[in-house]
Amino acid sequence: MDIHRTIGQMARDARQAAGVIGRSDAARKNRALTTMADLLEQQAERIFRENRKDLQRAEETGLSAAMVDRLTVTENTISAMAGGLREVAAYPDPVGTMGETRVRPNGLRVSRMRIPLGVIGIIYESRPNVTIDAAGLCLKSGNAVILRGGSEALHSNRALAGVIAQALESAGLPSRAAQVVPTDDRAAVTALLAQEEFVDLVIPRGGEGLIRFVVENAKMPVLKHYKGVCHVFVDQTADLKMAEAICFNAKVQRPGVCNAMETLLVHRQMAREFLPAMARRFDAAGVQLRGCPLTCDILTGITPATDADWPQEYLDLTLAVKVVADMEAAMAHIARYGSLHTETIVTSDFGRAHRFVRNVDASVVMVNASTRFNDGGQLGLGAEMGISTSKLHAFGPMGIKELTTQKFVVLGDGQVRE
Amino acid sequence: MDIHRTIGQMARDARQAAGVIGRSDAARKNRALTTMADLLEQQAERIFRENRKDLQRAEETGLSAAMVDRLTVTENTISAMAGGLREVAAYPDPVGTMGETRVRPNGLRVSRMRIPLGVIGIIYESRPNVTIDAAGLCLKSGNAVILRGGSEALHSNRALAGVIAQALESAGLPSRAAQVVPTDDRAAVTALLAQEEFVDLVIPRGGEGLIRFVVENAKMPVLKHYKGVCHVFVDQTADLKMAEAICFNAKVQRPGVCNAMETLLVHRQMAREFLPAMARRFDAAGVQLRGCPLTCDILTGITPATDADWPQEYLDLTLAVKVVADMEAAMAHIARYGSLHTETIVTSDFGRAHRFVRNVDASVVMVNASTRFNDGGQLGLGAEMGISTSKLHAFGPMGIKELTTQKFVVLGDGQVRE
Repeated sequence: MDIHRTIGQMARDARQAAGVIGRSDAARKNRALTTMADLLEQQAERIFRENRKDLQRAEETGLSAAMVDRLTVTENTISAMAGGLREVAAYPDPVGTMGETRVRPNGLRVSRMRIPLGVIGIIYESRPNVTIDAAGLCLKSGNAVILRGGSEALHSNRALAGVIAQALESAGLPSRAAQVVPTDDRAAVTALLAQEEFVDLVIPRGGEGLIRFVVENAKMPVLKHYKGVCHVFVDQTADLKMAEAICFNAKVQRPGVCNAMETLLVHRQMAREFLPAMARRFDAAGVQLRGCPLTCDILTGITPATDADWPQEYLDLTLAVKVVADMEAAMAHIARYGSLHTETIVTSDFGRAHRFVRNVDASVVMVNASTRFNDGGQLGLGAEMGISTSKLHAFGPMGIKELTTQKFVVLGDGQVRE
Repeated sequence: MDIHRTIGQMARDARQAAGVIGRSDAARKNRALTTMADLLEQQAERIFRENRKDLQRAEETGLSAAMVDRLTVTENTISAMAGGLREVAAYPDPVGTMGETRVRPNGLRVSRMRIPLGVIGIIYESRPNVTIDAAGLCLKSGNAVILRGGSEALHSNRALAGVIAQALESAGLPSRAAQVVPTDDRAAVTALLAQEEFVDLVIPRGGEGLIRFVVENAKMPVLKHYKGVCHVFVDQTADLKMAEAICFNAKVQRPGVCNAMETLLVHRQMAREFLPAMARRFDAAGVQLRGCPLTCDILTGITPATDADWPQEYLDLTLAVKVVADMEAAMAHIARYGSLHTETIVTSDFGRAHRFVRNVDASVVMVNASTRFNDGGQLGLGAEMGISTSKLHAFGPMGIKELTTQKFVVLGDGQVRE
């Protein structure tokens, strides 16, 4: 197979299919989505069979237990995928919606209409469910999509691609509106990233290495986040019980995800009161602490933090802890080490809450809530395509709306310019 | 001067200044803007003197008359720049504004706050007024800016940089919030495009060569438009008097700009009725026509169009004319040769207007109005930073709002995730 030629043809086909899906009415797109859900359930056995081929190869190549876990498709995975598709089908269609119309002094009526972006490339690792989730969101928003999953999931993704194509065709939509790259050759990624004429946006989802590779090689715009180094700052005016609950949840509820807390910042005025009880609770949950000198002074016996700890995304039951002189020091630490992802203050003081919200630079800034709420579903956006920590186009969780743009619509009755 | 070092230092300084200007209140920013306007008028003589150095060099190097015209700073240029700054000062400040708040079932209050992008690089040619216009828009929107004008305007731009720095300082803002690259070395552009850590966005303004160079070399996001190949489609149901007025305005009112009409598409059903009168009017205004075979059949004696004419941006009193079989053919022509800039239909039929608006892919789609209205001021957005024909982040005229983004603000009273 000539990879560049194959990918080039896929990209051209996608552009053509985008014209059709972009103009398709909601009923037809929704029919494709619900049919996809039905077919997933009906063809579960075939999907499991193909998934087992990937799992067998994973065993042969000695993939880590965590990777194998993410790769495995179970009954639960199938019903989560099908449920997700039905949920997306139930959303209102953003395409063609228009906001306020303003009337210019010369009578021109100016408004904006929401339209799809065109063709979206998704490059991801491991989890085969991304194939279905991403295809569902792209189709609902009227975009064509090219999906490039990890080589370790190739058989699973091909089986899912079959379901997607069948559902599209049964709804009278072009099957090329959602294509899975049919090879595990790495050159396919490079080839895809060169298709700037036909691919409008690339979204990488995976580890930092994958994302950097995509950013450096893509000729088209990229929406991404590298990592989540999220902080909770416990202010001197914090309700300590509330602070304890929030910090515990932010670290322990699901430590392996990007919106988990990685560094705890504690105001010096109440560090001695707050930290011992907090540390006991973390200890009971198996959380390893790495403390600044003042923290180590209060919590004897914990590991001292080094300079390498502050920018670290542990994604694990490890937490860096720093006692800060005041709120300015906390915000300076966040400005230096934060990753523009999620930052929380726990405080009972209005002015400090206000200042933190105004001045901290992150896609989501919170007061008195767990960092774990930075998630499209939790914030009420519906299913998400990931969380953007770059400011252009989308900042924070990307829902269906972030897969669209707006064009201006100008209606006149013969206006010309003076 | 070590260019990479100089530019690197400017970028770091800009990032630091962005922190200050991004948190500055509107009153202070507006004071800087109005002071800048006053200083421009007070220091006009000095600016003229520096501008004359550029003009003298332009003469020596044999710059084209059009380039010299754009380079020249007159009394009118000064008052336009000063007036523009005062107008921008009068706009409402977008920074810190928040939209609707939605309340989640668990009581979390979710909203979005508008924030600056950070540091913006502007790379442009010839017109020294861009230095002031761009600095004004960036400062108002809370961004730091690095300006890199053409080497032919270096003296003028340095003089304007002095005015900007003085105005910032007098308002108590860091003068590094708006910096002009102080060298005409081309390596400065390459060095600037490599500062992805400190520069969040680059906007090139100029010819296609400059823009392609920026897109290929920039490590950060770029907002740009390559060219404007704008069409007017005169439908069979068009009011012919209205069509004539719109086409004449779209071509003749200012032919050298990106929103001027470059190709006229005429429905076959009324081409014989419409074209002869239209052609006489164009002829009287010195417009050269290039016609498809059917057009040449109706308008004997005009130059036949070649394949090179349809994708052409003439920016001159030249117009390609094509007779199309129906509306589908018109839309197919636009899809093939259009540049996503501005597309107009002249029609009296509701269904056709609706279909054109829904299906044509362009940053501005119009019904019964001149393409010349694709302009931030004309559409009511205020001063613009150019027109984006790429769909990510901004599509169409970019006003102050397009120089900002939104972060999520989440307010709770102790919520944790289940």
